[in-house]
Formats: sequence, C-alpha cells, structure tokens
Amino acid sequence: MYIKDNRWVPTLDDIKEAHHRVIPWINRTPIMTSMSIDSMVGGNLFFKCENLQKVGAFKFRGATNAVLSLSDEQALNGVATHSSGNHAQALALAARNRGIPAYIVIPGNAPKVKVDAVKGYGAEITFCEPTLDARETTLEKVIERTGAEFIHPYNDSRIISGQATAALELIDNIKDMDIIMAPVGGGGLLSGTSLSTKYLSPGTMIIAAEPENADDAFRSFRSGKLIPSEDPDTIADGLKTSLSDLTFNIIRENVDDIVTVSEDGIRIAMRTIWERMKLIVEPSSAVPLGAIMERKLDVKGKRVGIILSGGNVDLDRLPW
Amino acid sequence: MYIKDNRWVPTLDDIKEAHHRVIPWINRTPIMTSMSIDSMVGGNLFFKCENLQKVGAFKFRGATNAVLSLSDEQALNGVATHSSGNHAQALALAARNRGIPAYIVIPGNAPKVKVDAVKGYGAEITFCEPTLDARETTLEKVIERTGAEFIHPYNDSRIISGQATAALELIDNIKDMDIIMAPVGGGGLLSGTSLSTKYLSPGTMIIAAEPENADDAFRSFRSGKLIPSEDPDTIADGLKTSLSDLTFNIIRENVDDIVTVSEDGIRIAMRTIWERMKLIVEPSSAVPLGAIMERKLDVKGKRVGIILSGGNVDLDRLPW
Repeated sequence: MYIKDNRWVPTLDDIKEAHHRVIPWINRTPIMTSMSIDSMVGGNLFFKCENLQKVGAFKFRGATNAVLSLSDEQALNGVATHSSGNHAQALALAARNRGIPAYIVIPGNAPKVKVDAVKGYGAEITFCEPTLDARETTLEKVIERTGAEFIHPYNDSRIISGQATAALELIDNIKDMDIIMAPVGGGGLLSGTSLSTKYLSPGTMIIAAEPENADDAFRSFRSGKLIPSEDPDTIADGLKTSLSDLTFNIIRENVDDIVTVSEDGIRIAMRTIWERMKLIVEPSSAVPLGAIMERKLDVKGKRVGIILSGGNVDLDRLPW
Repeated sequence: MYIKDNRWVPTLDDIKEAHHRVIPWINRTPIMTSMSIDSMVGGNLFFKCENLQKVGAFKFRGATNAVLSLSDEQALNGVATHSSGNHAQALALAARNRGIPAYIVIPGNAPKVKVDAVKGYGAEITFCEPTLDARETTLEKVIERTGAEFIHPYNDSRIISGQATAALELIDNIKDMDIIMAPVGGGGLLSGTSLSTKYLSPGTMIIAAEPENADDAFRSFRSGKLIPSEDPDTIADGLKTSLSDLTFNIIRENVDDIVTVSEDGIRIAMRTIWERMKLIVEPSSAVPLGAIMERKLDVKGKRVGIILSGGNVDLDRLPW
C-alpha cells in the first residue's frame, strides 16, 4: 500500500527473508512460562523473552535486518539515527557487526549509562538539544556530512520486518495461541507482530497494550486518525513515542484491539515478572501483563503469547 | 563410606535414578551465556539457571527426590524440616506434589514473604525461637506428634543426589568444560555437583566459591577438619550454614579447590548478572562469578560451567 522510500507493508516473504538474514546475529530467545502467573490470571501465558535479546531489547532484530538489507554501496558510508534508547544501541552493534560506521544523535540529557553503551559499540555520537526539532536538524547535518543511510527506529519497513521475526519464532514454537499481545509505542514491534500473526496464524487475535498516560495509539486506533502523543508521562519510557504513518496503517488493518493500563498496573506487573519469573524486564515489557492483571481483557482458559520487549532498566532507580 | 541412616555417598546410579524421579516435576533449566561477561573475564562461562527452577532455587531438585524416594509407608505421615529459606518452600511444594503433608519449623523472625510462600504451598508451620537449639527441639516435638519423616536440607544423601542433577544436566549439554563452579553453604549443592562431575566428566576441575565472611568450608577444606561457621555476616544469606559430616567428606574427596570472595565482589557480580544477563539471582548465586571477577582463579581461555543457585531476593532491599 505504502511504497515510498523505505515504507511499504512487509510481505510474508520480507519477514522470512529478514529472519534468514538476522538469525546468525541475534539470540533466538527462549519462551518462558510461569505456573504462578498462569494461576493468577486463569490462562496460559507464553512469554517471548526479548529482554534476553542482544543489547537487551527486540530492537536489535530490526536494526540488524535494516543494516544487512543495505547494498554494499548503500552501506559504504554507514548508518545514522537519532535515539537515546534501545534503537541507538541496537543500530550501533548491528553496524559494528557489518563493519560499517554508525552515527548516533543523542539528546544532551540522555543517561550516561546509555551514552556509554552506544560508545562501547564504537558508534560516533553527536549531542543535541533535547527537542525533536534539534534531533532532526542535527541528524540532517550528520547525514549531509557523512552520506550515512538514515535508519528510522520504526517508520521503516526493513525495521518492521526485523521486529516481526520475534512473533514468527513465537508462532513457530507455540501452537494454537488464542491471542498474541505486544506493547505499543512507535508501533514497530506491534506492526511486525501483527503482520507475522496474520500471515502465519490467522486465527489468533492481536491485542496491543499501551500506558493510559501515553495512549496515542489507543486514541488513534479508536478515532481512525493519527493522533500524536503530547509530552506523555509514564514509567514505560520506551512507549512515549507516537505512531508513524506506516505503523498506524499496518496497525489499523491488522490489530484487533488496543487496551490501556494504569501506571500502578505497569508497576505491579513488572514486579510480578521480576518476582515470579526471575526475569529483569523494563516497564514497557510489563504493559501487556498489566492489562491482563487489570482485567482489560479476558484470558480465562486462553493461550496467550506475550512479547517481553526489553530488559534495560536503571537498577538504581526502580519504580517501587 | 558413610552408611548411616540416610547418609551415604551417592553413586552414579543414585544420581541417575534421582534425575529419572524428579524430571517430571522440575524445570529442566536453561543454560545461558553472555558475550559481554565472557569478554570481561576472558573465558567462556555457561550459567545453569537454577534461579529459574521451581520455587526459584536448586533446592527443589533435592526436596523432590527426597520426597519421591520415600516408600508409601514412610510417606504416609508426611515430611518435616526446619528452615526459613529455600529448602522450606522446596519441601512444601514437593510434598504437595506427592499429596502428603509437610511440617515446617520456622524461626519467628523469618521474613513474612517467605512464611507466606511456605503457607501458599499448603505446609503446616510451627514457629520457634530463632536459635538452632530451639529449631531442633521444636522439630523433634513436631516429628513426635506427627510421625513425619525428617528431611535435612543437606546432610542427607537423597537431597544430595537430587542437587547433583543440576550438574548432570549441565554436563549433558555443554561438552569439554575445564571447570565447574558452585557456591558452598551447607554443601548439598557442591557435594552433588562434585559427584556428578567426577562420575560424568572426570577431566573437569571442581572449584567451589564461598564468601570470605562465611568461609567455614574454605577453612575446613584447607585444615582437613570440619570447622563450623560462627554467626557469619554476609549478604549471601543462603551460604551462612556450615558443612555437615557427610557433605564435608564428599567435598574433601571430590572438590579441587575452594576460593573466597569479598562482600563487594559478591555485590558487583550480582549486579553484573542482573545488568548483562537480565536474570534475577540472589547474592549466593553470584559468589562464583565474584571469585572470577576478583581473579581468585584464572579462567582465561577456559570453558567454565557455573551453577546459578537461586533467585529469591527481596526487591525492596537490594544490596546496592
């Protein structure tokens, strides 16, 4: 439908090719279950552990696919993006794996630990003011100077095809799921998840979960028009971004519902995963379980796949 | 060598039978690796994740084997022990799985969360004063009243055979390990680990790690005589107990060395596992990696198996 630059709706072949491309580089992450959480919610939950992915988040799948999709000529001058989060680290490592430079624009107020991680993967960092405007202008200059290829964190089909491989693996391993859930921020993971599910397990419902305090996707989905979020305040910091034209269109066509969850619900679900599953997940990862625990959807007797999106948290600043 | 009551040196057949007995009940826990920890220490580390075991600790293996080893007649009146830690939960769940009662003596100052967990598995709790003397006297009375079978947390071959199954699975999956490491407290895990290793991978060295602040096993090993610990103070609360006659004898014969680690070393290693592997482990689990990071042994170029013993921590009281 959308075929503009790097924005089209990925096909099943795109997703399969992406998986073939990334599999030597990524962790084929485990799928875990918890008897005690199952008995709390009354269903069977299957957690796809992207917190155990390289760089600690699903983002490495998309970044790796994007970097490896480039022709040698495109790759020559490296890749660039603006991000202070998991996409920055993911792109930096993916570029290093291919042996090409990565240029990352980071707001000056980003946590030092994240900046250090990006540096650790050998990327060149340019700091900017912490506004979207400054990020974009600074990135443009970097690209002008270097000739690097811009890899958007989610408004890019190569990224979405890569993120889709998490659900592909989940469906490959767990049969007859009634529901697959993913959190939604910019919509890259959700778009990919919904496409893999529609192609490979069309009887499975796709339900997204979003913080009440950053419910732009929920409102966009209900109203049928793209409503960006305005300065949202949520502990699920990975979900503050707004949908893009590409992700909104894919989500509108393929997602069955979006539910929201309170900040307390996110906190309780996160702690439940830590305590019961002994897994470190970031708040964003806990949003789907939070929605289930707040009974925003009924999972009684159902088989539910959940993508745990990442595990990068500041251990000195836990939300309890 | 020791054949008194339930105390003999488990044979390979004992361990294989234990594995056969427990496998329908336990998690066959994953073995995880970390590129970034490997590059920090210069070796290849293979972590056997008993923090992902049921009840969150390897203790469930031993308790399950002990409970399932009982004849119907022995099992009739249930099982009993004194413990405020992982063994109490493990025995409670193992008994529930067999459908027999469990009687647990717990010191009155034990954390409520642990008491609740034991209760949650349906065990009957008797509180006592927080001294070893009071624990033993109270337990005796409980056993007199109920006729339950006493299951010691480690001075029992059925327990040791069960704990041995973690290393058995590790050796089954990872070939050619140079070293296998386990933490040592009462010595049940270490005894079992050392026996499995000697039987199944005789070329692999067995090295135990212990907190400097609770180094009774280290001192016993060096001096050749059993020296109990006296009121040790360490964040690795699972390792405060002293060796027993049975575990000391097995360890003396089968363990190649014991190294110690500082409290800071434990803390740093624990945080490293949390941050790099996204796994929640309790301080005791981090003791072997702490010893490696403090260079108490050389793992350069070596393949090292490490048993992560458990993941039960109070998330409100982290040691950093």
